[in-house]
Amino acid sequence: MATVPLIQYEDATDEVKAIYDKIKAARGLDDVNNFWKATAHQPALAETIFDTIHRVMAPGELDPLTKELIYVAVSIANNCDYCIHAHTASARKKGMSDAQYGEFLEVVAIASQANAVANGMKIPVDDQFIR
Amino acid sequence: MATVPLIQYEDATDEVKAIYDKIKAARGLDDVNNFWKATAHQPALAETIFDTIHRVMAPGELDPLTKELIYVAVSIANNCDYCIHAHTASARKKGMSDAQYGEFLEVVAIASQANAVANGMKIPVDDQFIR
Amino acid sequence: MATVPLIQYEDATDEVKAIYDKIKAARGLDDVNNFWKATAHQPALAETIFDTIHRVMAPGELDPLTKELIYVAVSIANNCDYCIHAHTASARKKGMSDAQYGEFLEVVAIASQANAVANGMKIPVDDQFIR
Amino acid sequence: MATVPLIQYEDATDEVKAIYDKIKAARGLDDVNNFWKATAHQPALAETIFDTIHRVMAPGELDPLTKELIYVAVSIANNCDYCIHAHTASARKKGMSDAQYGEFLEVVAIASQANAVANGMKIPVDDQFIR
Amino acid sequence: MATVPLIQYEDATDEVKAIYDKIKAARGLDDVNNFWKATAHQPALAETIFDTIHRVMAPGELDPLTKELIYVAVSIANNCDYCIHAHTASARKKGMSDAQYGEFLEVVAIASQANAVANGMKIPVDDQFIR
Amino acid sequence: MATVPLIQYEDATDEVKAIYDKIKAARGLDDVNNFWKATAHQPALAETIFDTIHRVMAPGELDPLTKELIYVAVSIANNCDYCIHAHTASARKKGMSDAQYGEFLEVVAIASQANAVANGMKIPVDDQFIR
Repeated sequence: MATVPLIQYEDATDEVKAIYDKIKAARGLDDVNNFWKATAHQPALAETIFDTIHRVMAPGELDPLTKELIYVAVSIANNCDYCIHAHTASARKKGMSDAQYGEFLEVVAIASQANAVANGMKIPVDDQFIR
Repeated sequence: MATVPLIQYEDATDEVKAIYDKIKAARGLDDVNNFWKATAHQPALAETIFDTIHRVMAPGELDPLTKELIYVAVSIANNCDYCIHAHTASARKKGMSDAQYGEFLEVVAIASQANAVANGMKIPVDDQFIR
Repeated sequence: MATVPLIQYEDATDEVKAIYDKIKAARGLDDVNNFWKATAHQPALAETIFDTIHRVMAPGELDPLTKELIYVAVSIANNCDYCIHAHTASARKKGMSDAQYGEFLEVVAIASQANAVANGMKIPVDDQFIR
Repeated sequence: MATVPLIQYEDATDEVKAIYDKIKAARGLDDVNNFWKATAHQPALAETIFDTIHRVMAPGELDPLTKELIYVAVSIANNCDYCIHAHTASARKKGMSDAQYGEFLEVVAIASQANAVANGMKIPVDDQFIR
Repeated sequence: MATVPLIQYEDATDEVKAIYDKIKAARGLDDVNNFWKATAHQPALAETIFDTIHRVMAPGELDPLTKELIYVAVSIANNCDYCIHAHTASARKKGMSDAQYGEFLEVVAIASQANAVANGMKIPVDDQFIR
Repeated sequence: MATVPLIQYEDATDEVKAIYDKIKAARGLDDVNNFWKATAHQPALAETIFDTIHRVMAPGELDPLTKELIYVAVSIANNCDYCIHAHTASARKKGMSDAQYGEFLEVVAIASQANAVANGMKIPVDDQFIR
């Protein structure tokens, strides 16, 4: 058990059931993930996050897999266990191949390394980048 | 001036000049960025990072712009000023439109928010994600 | 088992027993938490941290619950599992309601999002904030 | 100049002007902060963040100053220059005294220290906190 | 099970077996750690990291224990569970005493605290440090 | 100017002057750094941090340069501008050579990279490390 108990559908208030129903319909799932069963303790928070994720992760100028990879990259750097597991699984569902995952990890790895070096040496930003 | 002085081409050792020449040739530039002029104090570090970046950021199973966006996402989460400026500029060079940048920022924003919530509530990972 | 074994009271040196006794007396507890059973391997570290926490978390210009919420907010952003669990529990003991916890999480969530956006866009600080 | 140029009111589109007008009215200000002049390049992002901040930071079960302190605590741990400056200023506007700021900083400081120790020693969470 | 299944030696491709053999020979071990069994899904990534670690952690101008302590310090600040466990164990193998571990933790603790304070107050860097 | 104005010696209260005098005497300096001129707004915080740093950074089971390197490593991972500048300068004062700095940076760089990979793949900790 986490900091809060998960709210199962059958135990939910009508307000929360409506949010679960919206999520299940949008995603074509039989049940919602733990993320929603935990945040449902704060319905306004859960609904705001779902609405934003639903809008933001939809296909647009960037394709859905690219968006998932950006999402996982942020989650790795923030070291969010839940989000890394959930969105790596989601990226695979959206078609990420093993080879793409490998390249993704290599970019995350070299970026993390270069971040540490640039921060550590306090390298001044080139004029051309900030003009 | 940063923690270390930047090494300009004309003041560089032959070993460093060779690294600069390799970078300029690979990128078609007249001069190298400050990142290399600072890390050149440690030629082994500079050359290892360049070789890895050059290999990792090349077109592969993921396209170059997707790789840049992953790179910038990590750099934002690690708050690396230098890397954010340099690689946002690089993403634009590789064709990132304003609309794509907007969508990119929205994904970074919602991921950061969901990371904080999932970490804060210590939400347990669903079995389906870790089976 | 963690990186170091936990030191139980009955196995502790007299120096450590004295620290445990001080903590138990100050908090009205029968036993100390794992944090102290682990840090007790470094008695100077354990005692310095306890003395500081005891002084800093006491009622003052800010009330104890506000201080706990600040503590949990930092722990979430640093993703410290132990501290999030311990101090969320502590905030509940100090009277945090479900509704307060919900508002707390919403502030943490929106701050994390705005942090990512401001860092990602490298937004310059308004003169009025730094004058 | 940052990664993107700031959009001044007179140069804004009608959509952006409407967002600026909403912010100015809600806050009783003559002009909006740089945060909005930068995020206005992505009107949907700007408006979502403003609406959420406006709802979340309003008086509720937690008072506005407590919410600001939670916000600043997160921003310090995420090291967001812009947010630290803006929301420390905002906390002062909402009545934060020097003594309160001192206590706030002491809580942030000891939490950061205890986070590092608990993470570094991988201290197991007490059963009582996760039951 | 983690995000990816671990690749055991007997199930590995010849390319991966060669990497495992190199690691086992270099370290005088009968088997490789999970880090390699996971990253082996991306052989180029695994080999690049091993070669770099092998070169970088070797005795040089800094002794191997000092290098391990720097490694663990970074891993604590980034809160990498795997790396903290593996490299604290490695530091002990390289001779770290309990007393040294205690002092190490105290430095990590006070640095984390001072980092938060300096970032929180946005203290300007003294001219003498950046001249 | 930072979030708070720096308190110069001549403008300080007697309590703060006493802290400055203690710092100057302990370090053999004519003036104190900005860190103390900012934290002096909270004399209890300033004095606690100074006393701890003074005790913790003194020669012990680890030599002073090793302690500085651990300090800088943490500061880089936390991206504390002030602390990176101040303690890199301090490491040089304590004898850090260019070659040692280069090796230090290489360890920080590879650790940051391995942290990201281990966190990203959620690699399970080997039993041998946690038994």
